[in-house]
Amino acid sequence: MTVLVVGSVALDSVETPFGKADDVLGGSGTFFSAAASLLTPVQLVGVVGDDYPVDKLQPLADRGVDLSGLERAEGPSFRWRGRYRHDLNSAETLETHLGVFSRFSPKIPEAFRSAPFVFLANIDPRLQLDVLKQVQRPKLVACDTMNFWIESRRPELMELLGHVDLITVNDGEARQLSEKANLVQAARWIMSHGPRHVIIKKGEHGAFMFTEDTIFFAPAYPLESVFDPTGAGDSFAGGFIGYLAKTGDLSEGNMRRAVIYGSAMGSFAVEKFSIERLLEVTREDLGSRIRDFRKLVAFEEELE
Amino acid sequence: MTVLVVGSVALDSVETPFGKADDVLGGSGTFFSAAASLLTPVQLVGVVGDDYPVDKLQPLADRGVDLSGLERAEGPSFRWRGRYRHDLNSAETLETHLGVFSRFSPKIPEAFRSAPFVFLANIDPRLQLDVLKQVQRPKLVACDTMNFWIESRRPELMELLGHVDLITVNDGEARQLSEKANLVQAARWIMSHGPRHVIIKKGEHGAFMFTEDTIFFAPAYPLESVFDPTGAGDSFAGGFIGYLAKTGDLSEGNMRRAVIYGSAMGSFAVEKFSIERLLEVTREDLGSRIRDFRKLVAFEEELE
Repeated sequence: MTVLVVGSVALDSVETPFGKADDVLGGSGTFFSAAASLLTPVQLVGVVGDDYPVDKLQPLADRGVDLSGLERAEGPSFRWRGRYRHDLNSAETLETHLGVFSRFSPKIPEAFRSAPFVFLANIDPRLQLDVLKQVQRPKLVACDTMNFWIESRRPELMELLGHVDLITVNDGEARQLSEKANLVQAARWIMSHGPRHVIIKKGEHGAFMFTEDTIFFAPAYPLESVFDPTGAGDSFAGGFIGYLAKTGDLSEGNMRRAVIYGSAMGSFAVEKFSIERLLEVTREDLGSRIRDFRKLVAFEEELE
Repeated sequence: MTVLVVGSVALDSVETPFGKADDVLGGSGTFFSAAASLLTPVQLVGVVGDDYPVDKLQPLADRGVDLSGLERAEGPSFRWRGRYRHDLNSAETLETHLGVFSRFSPKIPEAFRSAPFVFLANIDPRLQLDVLKQVQRPKLVACDTMNFWIESRRPELMELLGHVDLITVNDGEARQLSEKANLVQAARWIMSHGPRHVIIKKGEHGAFMFTEDTIFFAPAYPLESVFDPTGAGDSFAGGFIGYLAKTGDLSEGNMRRAVIYGSAMGSFAVEKFSIERLLEVTREDLGSRIRDFRKLVAFEEELE
């Protein structure tokens, strides 16, 4: 089944202890699409400026990302410049230029409106709500958000929570949104405001998926070298939703598998700059990493 | 089989957002013994001052902790006073008074020298080496250490690494010891200096066990309320080594189970002050939490 994603399509300039990249493909919509499209067809809605190297998106189109919802507006593209220090844990934002993204108003093409899976990447909750008015009863709607919107658009974000099935946030955002330090309590608070599933991403420390009466935990894959953490969270979401859309199965067991697919995609994303690694990864690589995840956590209870 | 532990027996005063406790049982030897003794007989070697409320150790003796190696010296007991802030992640040490512990020189009673499992809790590496000269070819020797010894006793600690089968350290200590930011690289570096197994504890983020060619990960149990994190690491070690000693099985599969037993004991330890919760926990409670750990990480690969 098809996934519709609405998010940013940006140009990133990144500095890590291992190298530097300038004006490479970035943005939540881009990372999500690169990851999800290994598994299922993707429809991308976003905006780029007239300076965007759209030909560089061709590899995404070749993998089955429908770019007909990618608007081209007059003016500069969204640009982000960041740096990671030695521990790679958190990006230091050096520059953000929203460019045409600041006037983004998502228009969902007619052909995209019946997508059964919808991912509202991290954009203004008012726009996320607006997207939901344009689509027809998806099987699953998931959203992401960030500290900026939690602060500046709390009422709209709370309204959004009432209309999504699942939210992905990182641990800091979960705490900020719920005003609870304990993550189990934070997840319960969020679920009490709408979503049946809450995924809390902890970066190198893995991810939790909470439902009303279950908790699932997936570690991050212990890589010997992490090259560039940019986009790991959106790649996680792409692998997760992509797998759900591929299988069309929303059972607890399948959602657990989907979290592992998300974790695997996140682990590939950080091995190179931008979406480079995601575009190289094959279904076989993915399968192999899924088996490695299983080995990582596998233990047998003793027979007594 | 029996476990010999050499470590501190202290009096802790702890302040958390949920309450305050004064002069309660603490120390690495105490927490380790409380956890391990649910599973297997324990022999404790340590020192207390003439002010120590030794009668309060009776519940440990009742569970099978042999206290005949607990020396009573003239002078004040080891006292630690600490505080945890809202996030409970790291203790702020307010006071440390080593008292009689500063002159501690472990004397292993004759009857303890053939213990098949030995845990050298966090004490001066010179004393840890000295203990190893007194014991007879144990089946497994494990040690713990801390930032203070990594800084001030590096040569002795490196010598110790050549004589232990396993080391437990937290992530910060692993990085400090190996001078590598990446934990996989840090673990490999430590193993290249002796131990066949390295356990890296990440507190609320779980624990890794590394061997030459495998990595196992156990999450921390997602508790809805953590009361007092003091002693979680030593309780982990007690559950881990206690389970290995109980089963006498050092296969990879059994060591993985042992990590889960350690994680379970760590999760119980933090539910109350001091060793209170550890003393209440039954084998049934433990079995039930082990099953919860399994549910927490269980996923089935798809059949293709």
